[in-house]
Amino acid sequence: MEHTKRYQLPEEEIPRQWYNIQAEMPNKPMPLLNPATREPMRPEDLYPVFAEELCRQELNQTDAWIDIPEEVREKYKFYRSTPLVRAYGLEKALGTPAHIYFKNESVSPMGSHKLNSAIPQAYYCKQEGVENVTTETGAGQWGASLAYAASMFGLNAAVYQVKISYEQKPYRKSIMQVFGAQVTPSPSMSTRAGKDIITRDPNHQGSLGTAISEAIELAQTTPHCKYTLGSVLSHVTLHQTVIGLEAEKQMAMAGEYPDIVIACFGGGSNFGGLAFPFMRHNFTGERNTRFIAAEPDSCPKLTRGVFRYDFGDETGYTPLLPMFTLGHNFKPANIHAGGLRYHGAGVIVSQLIKDGYMEGMDIPQLESFEAGTLFARTEGIIPAPESCHAIAATIREAKKCIETGEEKVILFNLSGHGLIDMASYDKFIAGDLQNYTLTDEAIRKNLES
Amino acid sequence: MEHTKRYQLPEEEIPRQWYNIQAEMPNKPMPLLNPATREPMRPEDLYPVFAEELCRQELNQTDAWIDIPEEVREKYKFYRSTPLVRAYGLEKALGTPAHIYFKNESVSPMGSHKLNSAIPQAYYCKQEGVENVTTETGAGQWGASLAYAASMFGLNAAVYQVKISYEQKPYRKSIMQVFGAQVTPSPSMSTRAGKDIITRDPNHQGSLGTAISEAIELAQTTPHCKYTLGSVLSHVTLHQTVIGLEAEKQMAMAGEYPDIVIACFGGGSNFGGLAFPFMRHNFTGERNTRFIAAEPDSCPKLTRGVFRYDFGDETGYTPLLPMFTLGHNFKPANIHAGGLRYHGAGVIVSQLIKDGYMEGMDIPQLESFEAGTLFARTEGIIPAPESCHAIAATIREAKKCIETGEEKVILFNLSGHGLIDMASYDKFIAGDLQNYTLTDEAIRKNLES
Repeated sequence: MEHTKRYQLPEEEIPRQWYNIQAEMPNKPMPLLNPATREPMRPEDLYPVFAEELCRQELNQTDAWIDIPEEVREKYKFYRSTPLVRAYGLEKALGTPAHIYFKNESVSPMGSHKLNSAIPQAYYCKQEGVENVTTETGAGQWGASLAYAASMFGLNAAVYQVKISYEQKPYRKSIMQVFGAQVTPSPSMSTRAGKDIITRDPNHQGSLGTAISEAIELAQTTPHCKYTLGSVLSHVTLHQTVIGLEAEKQMAMAGEYPDIVIACFGGGSNFGGLAFPFMRHNFTGERNTRFIAAEPDSCPKLTRGVFRYDFGDETGYTPLLPMFTLGHNFKPANIHAGGLRYHGAGVIVSQLIKDGYMEGMDIPQLESFEAGTLFARTEGIIPAPESCHAIAATIREAKKCIETGEEKVILFNLSGHGLIDMASYDKFIAGDLQNYTLTDEAIRKNLES
Repeated sequence: MEHTKRYQLPEEEIPRQWYNIQAEMPNKPMPLLNPATREPMRPEDLYPVFAEELCRQELNQTDAWIDIPEEVREKYKFYRSTPLVRAYGLEKALGTPAHIYFKNESVSPMGSHKLNSAIPQAYYCKQEGVENVTTETGAGQWGASLAYAASMFGLNAAVYQVKISYEQKPYRKSIMQVFGAQVTPSPSMSTRAGKDIITRDPNHQGSLGTAISEAIELAQTTPHCKYTLGSVLSHVTLHQTVIGLEAEKQMAMAGEYPDIVIACFGGGSNFGGLAFPFMRHNFTGERNTRFIAAEPDSCPKLTRGVFRYDFGDETGYTPLLPMFTLGHNFKPANIHAGGLRYHGAGVIVSQLIKDGYMEGMDIPQLESFEAGTLFARTEGIIPAPESCHAIAATIREAKKCIETGEEKVILFNLSGHGLIDMASYDKFIAGDLQNYTLTDEAIRKNLES
């Protein structure tokens, strides 16, 4: 009997540089625009909102490799490298000839990949004399990670958590509080943006779009304060490339190279983090890997959204971003994968979709939890509801291999564990969850509104 | 600035044998007695309850090293070796010259050390043709681990969870259910033992003692069914010695040897698992390490209990065990460290206390959560309420080093993380927790009852 096998890198193999895909993309992303002037944004235009180094990283289209500060790398060592695992248990349960691997980012002390960017974001803020940071969070994986990183670097953190997730997953709020963060459900009455949203819709359950608006506003009205973001932006995905850079070395240890790379998709950071280091070999023609972004079918911006300039938040505080979007005021259904309830895709990923380097795949909620439960019982890790989407996509592809007999190598990202999401599994087991597949009509109406 | 440092063993260094301290103790534990005949129990007397190999391990006083089956070792590789960490962050926050290390058992997919014994127990049951397993659990760390291991080996699992923990920590029940286990709060009406307890005390909140009675009864009245236990018994501690055997090698990697070894104490399995591989060097006189078992001051059997023959469960289904005990019908206060709410200590540890090889230390509930919160903020891992007791004891010893200036090397076991225990942290942060220090009168009265 074959056993689940883990590949672990020695500490000295933890990456020393992040991979900046913008420098090597055949077509660069279109510029971010100032909504008032329609002029392209320069790094210095973003300085009022983000740490300056992060602004430079955001718009850097020339340097393919960016050094990881030694202090950040030391903090990475708290939990990195993370294991690459051959999922023999899952393969056997499916009866597939495919070779299934997963990169296990759930071993981070906050339970997800989000720390990979929270640490450098807090680090650069600290370096630049910032004292307070704000952010948004959905399910709370990002908020918990930012609270942790802020605590490590002696910063105060204020987090706006999407209201529906704040209520669905109360333990994540508690985790943030243990690390000393302030947590407010969004939309709230604590900002003008929040008040306006509540005035328009008193029962608004919140979305990443509403929480971003509130967090940006708080940052701009608080001294020595910067805003931080957990996904969507290019510098966040840059930091996440530690995932794929490690995975590439670990796949080599296993003597394989992926035919298909899969990750769940909210704003794109865990997807890009795993995929981009592999995708660069597609740019050169050296490889021909398929890249699949698994999104909820209730929030299908990659497959059914439109590509256009749109805001990153509900209120319109952000620059205009060239993105696949369902419209910045899209209100996603109350699915339990809170981290995937976002209306748009990051600018890099949006360009890559246009250019055919990757594809989206839509997963209904029930299929995601079925996949997650099978994974738990075969591989012993309860996945986050977000990660369940990647597992469901993996299972679809592995089942195709049963038909074709192909021994495809599939690599997916286990972006986080679901130990804080057990109330969602409870509902699934009790039969109290449902699908929220969107109609074409609903999508069209929202885009036109 | 010094950074937290992790020492990780390569896969081939995962132990191939467990250490059986019974073979090398200067004074062997006294025998288990049949309560009816007062005759010493032989392995075959225990066969109706436990897998036969576990019964032989339980009473083996001759073989110091017992082979880990290859199948078990393969499952250990899912998460082992676990990291040994130098806690520079905690040292700095305390301002202590002590060197603090912790063994991080929280990285197991179920979040605690309990899998180390759940896997072999399920394995031996499977090997011997058992189809169903029962067990008790307090906070749920053991129950979750047994549910996981049973699922891995294709066994059905039924878990009695202490009622107060079932209500305090609902997510652990959900975890067990994801792995297909049946979970019942104890005391319940599903067994004669449970009915009797509820009849005597309709508001009984449950204890490990009540849950053990129910689980044993269910095993004995169900075909092809064995009972399994998560602590107290000698074979459980035997399996847990993988912790200390790894830690010994990792301390050598760090170039140090502990002056003090600390673990929290419920029945003794995580304590013995870490301590015994080090303690053997005290038996030979080669080392003179101090061993501290940190117990809640609301359940102080090590420091304030009596040594006598007592039952391991509330109803009296177990053999009579020579143990430090508060009386088998002791009802512990509703502290949040559910895994430490047990009236007695295992027979090996009880003998070692008598012989002066180790000591108990009593920790009030509030001190434990203060310690856990400081640890979270300095080392980035939220500890289980049980593990908080070990951290509190470590902090006490590290503070003594500030006074004396000694650079003592302290090693403690981080037996589990607290991500499923956030409701307890919520209450602590809100000021809603209290101490339950026992009076001498209360202890005396219970022992006489």
